Amino acid sequence: MSDITFNNPNLPIGIFDSGVGGLSVVREIFQQLPDEEIVYFGDTGRYPYGTRSVELVTKLALENAALLMDFNIKMLVVACNTASSVAMEALSKRIPIPALGVVRPGAYAAARATRNAKIGIIGTNATVNSGSYQKVLKSLSPNIECVARPCPLFVSLAEEGWTIGPVAKMIAETYLADLRVSGIDTLILGCTHYPLLKPVIANTMGEGVTLIDSAEATVAQMSRIMDDAEGLRNDSKKPEHKFLVSDAPDRFKEVGERFLSQKIPDVFKVALDTR
Amino acid sequence: MSDITFNNPNLPIGIFDSGVGGLSVVREIFQQLPDEEIVYFGDTGRYPYGTRSVELVTKLALENAALLMDFNIKMLVVACNTASSVAMEALSKRIPIPALGVVRPGAYAAARATRNAKIGIIGTNATVNSGSYQKVLKSLSPNIECVARPCPLFVSLAEEGWTIGPVAKMIAETYLADLRVSGIDTLILGCTHYPLLKPVIANTMGEGVTLIDSAEATVAQMSRIMDDAEGLRNDSKKPEHKFLVSDAPDRFKEVGERFLSQKIPDVFKVALDTR
Repeated sequence: MSDITFNNPNLPIGIFDSGVGGLSVVREIFQQLPDEEIVYFGDTGRYPYGTRSVELVTKLALENAALLMDFNIKMLVVACNTASSVAMEALSKRIPIPALGVVRPGAYAAARATRNAKIGIIGTNATVNSGSYQKVLKSLSPNIECVARPCPLFVSLAEEGWTIGPVAKMIAETYLADLRVSGIDTLILGCTHYPLLKPVIANTMGEGVTLIDSAEATVAQMSRIMDDAEGLRNDSKKPEHKFLVSDAPDRFKEVGERFLSQKIPDVFKVALDTR
Repeated sequence: MSDITFNNPNLPIGIFDSGVGGLSVVREIFQQLPDEEIVYFGDTGRYPYGTRSVELVTKLALENAALLMDFNIKMLVVACNTASSVAMEALSKRIPIPALGVVRPGAYAAARATRNAKIGIIGTNATVNSGSYQKVLKSLSPNIECVARPCPLFVSLAEEGWTIGPVAKMIAETYLADLRVSGIDTLILGCTHYPLLKPVIANTMGEGVTLIDSAEATVAQMSRIMDDAEGLRNDSKKPEHKFLVSDAPDRFKEVGERFLSQKIPDVFKVALDTR
């Protein structure tokens, strides 16, 4: 990443996700990099990505990146594990600014955290089936053992707001049963929705297992990249963020405020060029 | 509906849904109208519809209808409660063949079934919020009292195949708690995914409540319309069905065979004209 340059560090950072999940990355930016300005695009008209094909997710990711490029962004963050798992190569080839996904930072953080080299991965069907986390982990250390499990219902649970209580607990116990007895000491929350379920997942896995939130690791990595390449915003003006969606802005605002634990300003609906 | 005519009864029936759910209508066609030929389109590249806006669902429905019209169909069936709830008027204006949704037949069947004029409706957020079933029921009898409840997680449960067992039971008990004490004697399963959960819903609601499956009622209504207007297929050739999707044909085949309880032939991926 040594050849990264920022022509104008005061431009905003572009972030997209299939919907509200990527706001977990925004929350981390607000905490770790409060001076940065963001343009967030939630593809609510076409979510979820986790059950779609590799070809379609790649196409959607390229369209989203093109939309954000029109806002003159300095860096692209793919705040969606599914798109990060399958579309980073296509994106990096097509866009002329630094692009960062959540998979690589999450995998690095897990490799640093594990003591017994046994790492669990949970995510959507597409993320788990892509083997993206496993590939990065194996490249870091061939000794690392991976146990992966898709947990598709976690997304619906988070969207429904049922993040605690008996239903969440029973679903977590069902999905995580094998992981609990697998001997892992580190578990990657490989979907941006899952941090909302952190308490129930932590409780189910028990104290000996460290949970890795890709959002946290991704923003730490963004911070290092921008710091190294003199890309951090230094404008004294207060940042003005933009939130865009492809459908149902009101619902995004409502669910999104739960994700961010704070108010979201106006959410604008945009039309995508899908040709 | 007296002005309905069929120029050629041997043409296929076009059916669309946001994904696999509409196969519950196909299953009924195979049983009630085994001589009919169908072209089914599952919009798997853009599902689910239940959380999208009225404008977007209407746009998608019109695009799906245009796709099916290219296959020279004699009748259009909207096998999706969400699209049937918000897009039938727009569809009827735009297409020159008979179009039938699942809402009206489901509401009629419920009105016939109830004895105490208290009817429950469960469905997606979009269907319940549209008030579509309530409007038809009130037009049939202003005395009918309706109690409606969105149950969004039921769709994910059906897709995941968790249609029985403790998780399904607990979610059903949570969603249906108010309906159980509301005094309804009839419950409309207002989403084509829900018939897969019939046993757990029946069990939760108890013996006194009749469940109305819109698919069954819709195909009975199709049968009457075609019979009245001499539109039933009379070709001695065995019908050849077509299954089309907008993404991930393999996944459609896998989940779809669970819906149909029988094998599905080749599933073809088609491109939609979204301009």
